[in-house]
Amino acid sequence: MKQFMNTKETLVTEALDSLVRLSGGRLARLDGYPHIKVVVRTDWSRDRVALVSGGGSGHEPSHAGFVGQGMLTAAVCGDVFASPSVDAVLAGILAVTGKAGCLLIVKNYTGDRLNFGLAAERARAFGLRVSMVIVDDDIALPDLPQARGVAGTLFVHKIAGAHAEAGADLETVTTAARVVIHGTVSIGMSLDTCTVPGSPKQDRIASGKAELGLGIHGEAGIALVDFTGARAAMAMVLDRLRPHLGSGEYVALLNNLGGTTPLEMGVLAEELARAWPGQVRFIVGPAAMMTSLDMHGFSVSLLPVDAAAVHALAAPAAPHAWPGLSPVGEVALRPLPDGLTPIQPLPSAHPLRRTLVERCCAALIAAEPDLNLLDAKSGDGDTGSTLAGAARALVAALDRLPLADPTQLYRAIGAELSQTMGGSSGVLLAIFFAAAGDASAGGKSWIGALSAGLDRVMQVGGAEPGHRTMIDALAPALAALPGGVSAAAEAARRGADATSQMVRARAGRAAYLGEDKLRGHNDPGAEGVARLLEHLALAPV
Amino acid sequence: MKQFMNTKETLVTEALDSLVRLSGGRLARLDGYPHIKVVVRTDWSRDRVALVSGGGSGHEPSHAGFVGQGMLTAAVCGDVFASPSVDAVLAGILAVTGKAGCLLIVKNYTGDRLNFGLAAERARAFGLRVSMVIVDDDIALPDLPQARGVAGTLFVHKIAGAHAEAGADLETVTTAARVVIHGTVSIGMSLDTCTVPGSPKQDRIASGKAELGLGIHGEAGIALVDFTGARAAMAMVLDRLRPHLGSGEYVALLNNLGGTTPLEMGVLAEELARAWPGQVRFIVGPAAMMTSLDMHGFSVSLLPVDAAAVHALAAPAAPHAWPGLSPVGEVALRPLPDGLTPIQPLPSAHPLRRTLVERCCAALIAAEPDLNLLDAKSGDGDTGSTLAGAARALVAALDRLPLADPTQLYRAIGAELSQTMGGSSGVLLAIFFAAAGDASAGGKSWIGALSAGLDRVMQVGGAEPGHRTMIDALAPALAALPGGVSAAAEAARRGADATSQMVRARAGRAAYLGEDKLRGHNDPGAEGVARLLEHLALAPV
Repeated sequence: MKQFMNTKETLVTEALDSLVRLSGGRLARLDGYPHIKVVVRTDWSRDRVALVSGGGSGHEPSHAGFVGQGMLTAAVCGDVFASPSVDAVLAGILAVTGKAGCLLIVKNYTGDRLNFGLAAERARAFGLRVSMVIVDDDIALPDLPQARGVAGTLFVHKIAGAHAEAGADLETVTTAARVVIHGTVSIGMSLDTCTVPGSPKQDRIASGKAELGLGIHGEAGIALVDFTGARAAMAMVLDRLRPHLGSGEYVALLNNLGGTTPLEMGVLAEELARAWPGQVRFIVGPAAMMTSLDMHGFSVSLLPVDAAAVHALAAPAAPHAWPGLSPVGEVALRPLPDGLTPIQPLPSAHPLRRTLVERCCAALIAAEPDLNLLDAKSGDGDTGSTLAGAARALVAALDRLPLADPTQLYRAIGAELSQTMGGSSGVLLAIFFAAAGDASAGGKSWIGALSAGLDRVMQVGGAEPGHRTMIDALAPALAALPGGVSAAAEAARRGADATSQMVRARAGRAAYLGEDKLRGHNDPGAEGVARLLEHLALAPV
Repeated sequence: MKQFMNTKETLVTEALDSLVRLSGGRLARLDGYPHIKVVVRTDWSRDRVALVSGGGSGHEPSHAGFVGQGMLTAAVCGDVFASPSVDAVLAGILAVTGKAGCLLIVKNYTGDRLNFGLAAERARAFGLRVSMVIVDDDIALPDLPQARGVAGTLFVHKIAGAHAEAGADLETVTTAARVVIHGTVSIGMSLDTCTVPGSPKQDRIASGKAELGLGIHGEAGIALVDFTGARAAMAMVLDRLRPHLGSGEYVALLNNLGGTTPLEMGVLAEELARAWPGQVRFIVGPAAMMTSLDMHGFSVSLLPVDAAAVHALAAPAAPHAWPGLSPVGEVALRPLPDGLTPIQPLPSAHPLRRTLVERCCAALIAAEPDLNLLDAKSGDGDTGSTLAGAARALVAALDRLPLADPTQLYRAIGAELSQTMGGSSGVLLAIFFAAAGDASAGGKSWIGALSAGLDRVMQVGGAEPGHRTMIDALAPALAALPGGVSAAAEAARRGADATSQMVRARAGRAAYLGEDKLRGHNDPGAEGVARLLEHLALAPV
């Protein structure tokens, strides 16, 4: 029952005003608010056949959204689900009709037929040539005396529009519209009714059910059916259409009734495209063309086509709401690029570096219980195990590592960590070593390489010193490293201890914790870095 | 909880397949389903800077819908609201990146930052030039360590896309993207959360409330506010944006979060367009660009622009999901056309016709109680009063009628009836007499004119003989009229009596009634016609 509107009375007028205002001068409206709501093309000379459509609002972008070159000349808009008055229709006709005459495209509802019909008579009394076609594409209710007009109306707008734009005369345009109407069949399905502005929502369609063949005003459909998914839903709709299918080619129009997400419409489009690939060679949509406010449903319209009809449907049209004609093709596949599986570098020996890696890993394995305890105060208590687990895996991989080549070694450690460490920290450490490898390849020293890794981690992860992360130990340590490992270890310790006073984490999971959970104990990641360097400093490699 | 999908696991892959399938060969996807979901341009040579974006799905048309000339080169799609894997991103980069390099456009979420970040490192290890920008346009949560990336991302796609398309180098494209990100601010409001496929819907936002500043994954916003309509909603959003507004010109992007109807978006667009007319000279939208599944909400993004930025935003782009740049203009008004108020014909005398009209009216007035009684059996019992009321009004208008001019007389009677008779029957009789007037003006005899009126009523109203309407009496009567009024009266009587056996009405309100309500009594409209003619036959004028 909540809608973004100001008053029910101004819902349609304000929406039309924005359409006109943002049209870049392409549209205007007649100065007849609130009673007469008519949107017209400004890029229009009366030497061509005018196309006037309209009806109740609530079906946007129909009809005002389809006013423009190649489609409608004017749209006459009623209030939500209410036919426009005779005067409004007459105003629309008179505003755009010249010697070439005017075709009224009317959906088959009593109110629209009568009001457009009487307006046509009044326009004829002025000597204007006015013809009128009634769109009755809905096949949901075969016993209904008069089939309703639904989304198939768009075929009429587009094909008649192309003919009118090309300069055809009134008889030709009218005949083209009649041929389209004769051939078009539509039916829809919905999982929920629409919410009429200002009215409470009906809750008609039970959970697990869908309604087949309902109208675009929330009228009940022909059947409440079991809903078992998109494939069955589309199959049921196509089953109803099949008896109307001849042997020739068809264009299908896949209409979003308003509240269906693009993902769902995509799935339905895939079902539709696969259904009759030889016969349905083009699809219009999926797109919201003839909506029923926010109705969670879709409709399919079929039009038998020859080359001329395809040409008319494909002709350029100014209204952005017209989605164009899409050929039903194959799903074009490209092979996966090489390089997703990194080439394993050849192992190589380097006793000093091997010892260094082993020492680092030993330090982290030793710190496991302490770091878990620390993490338990502000997290889920697994930092120690995460780091120790990665360290154990690295030790186990030592024989496979290219220890003799620093660049390859950084990269290999990064790859190893990205496979063995879960979560954000694994990715961040992988980024650290990958970037260090890049820098090393670019000729950087080992301190320079590690600093480049740090820079990248900060850029990608978004954390900076002071954010209570491992960076609070790592950044000062790397800065102090040129002075030796002991200096680095001291800097790391100062940095790690300082995190106990950082009561507002700015990054990582701790950012969601309050002061009381953080004050007085070190960030476990920073503590891990400090422990590692302190261990190395005890007996430099 | 109902969605048009087959399985949660295939929701995104099937939707992407239809996008590719219906792209007319413009798009392809990598052959890496289900893990690697990457859509790429096919009309692409690697001599230009590639733009790769992506993230979790559920934001359609973002991001795959924006792949195409002038925008993205590839989109890497995760499952709904889940970041794509490092491998998927790497596949996307490798598939489209050549010597000119690649820019990754990443929304500021930890998963996306890390996965895109590590993929970038891995791509760099292949010698590719990869830069990465993080979009953080959301201003809803000023205290959040890292602002989220929301709909302002579209500005980055479009402007970086225009630069890349124009052949700019990686540094230029990256700098352009950074400038956009630095300037862009966004905030949204919603009346309801989104429905995550396969999960029950949260019911977080109470009736009468709206949530300000919520995220595009249904994350809670900064404040639950009173919802009092579109104007106040937009004002609240703009109030949050105002502190970020400088003195220059801006482009606003009005994004539909998914479940907002076009009418509502139109009202919001009107509010936005009126708010800062001097400063916001262009609007992108309203359109669904960065949705949150079916969320009933909107967001506004602001970008400070110079002429070059406007040029880049206005540059052509192949993706239909990009709504283009609309100048904020005035609402162009056209005066109402002349002719809505019919010129009153001059009264004139014709004693014979005056008597005829009086006799007809007297017949209908006399039949009032009987026709009401008849109508009560299958309707609301007012047919007699409706016809008698119109007859009384016509008698009262006799002195104003152009009795001497048949053409004008038909039209005047039609105009009189359309003003005094309510409902469908009034409009149908107005059409009858207006069409008769037209035919008379075209030289038809009075029988010919009345027949033309009947034809038009049948066309507009859709009823035919046998549908249990007044036409069942009127049509045979007009056919018999050349044989005299008595013959016509007899034909009308037979026609009216036959309606008592028509147990399935095909038009009018009685179409909704069952057999038991209809059998055995005449249609009141047909009976009225018979009574009128029988009255005239008693003593021909």
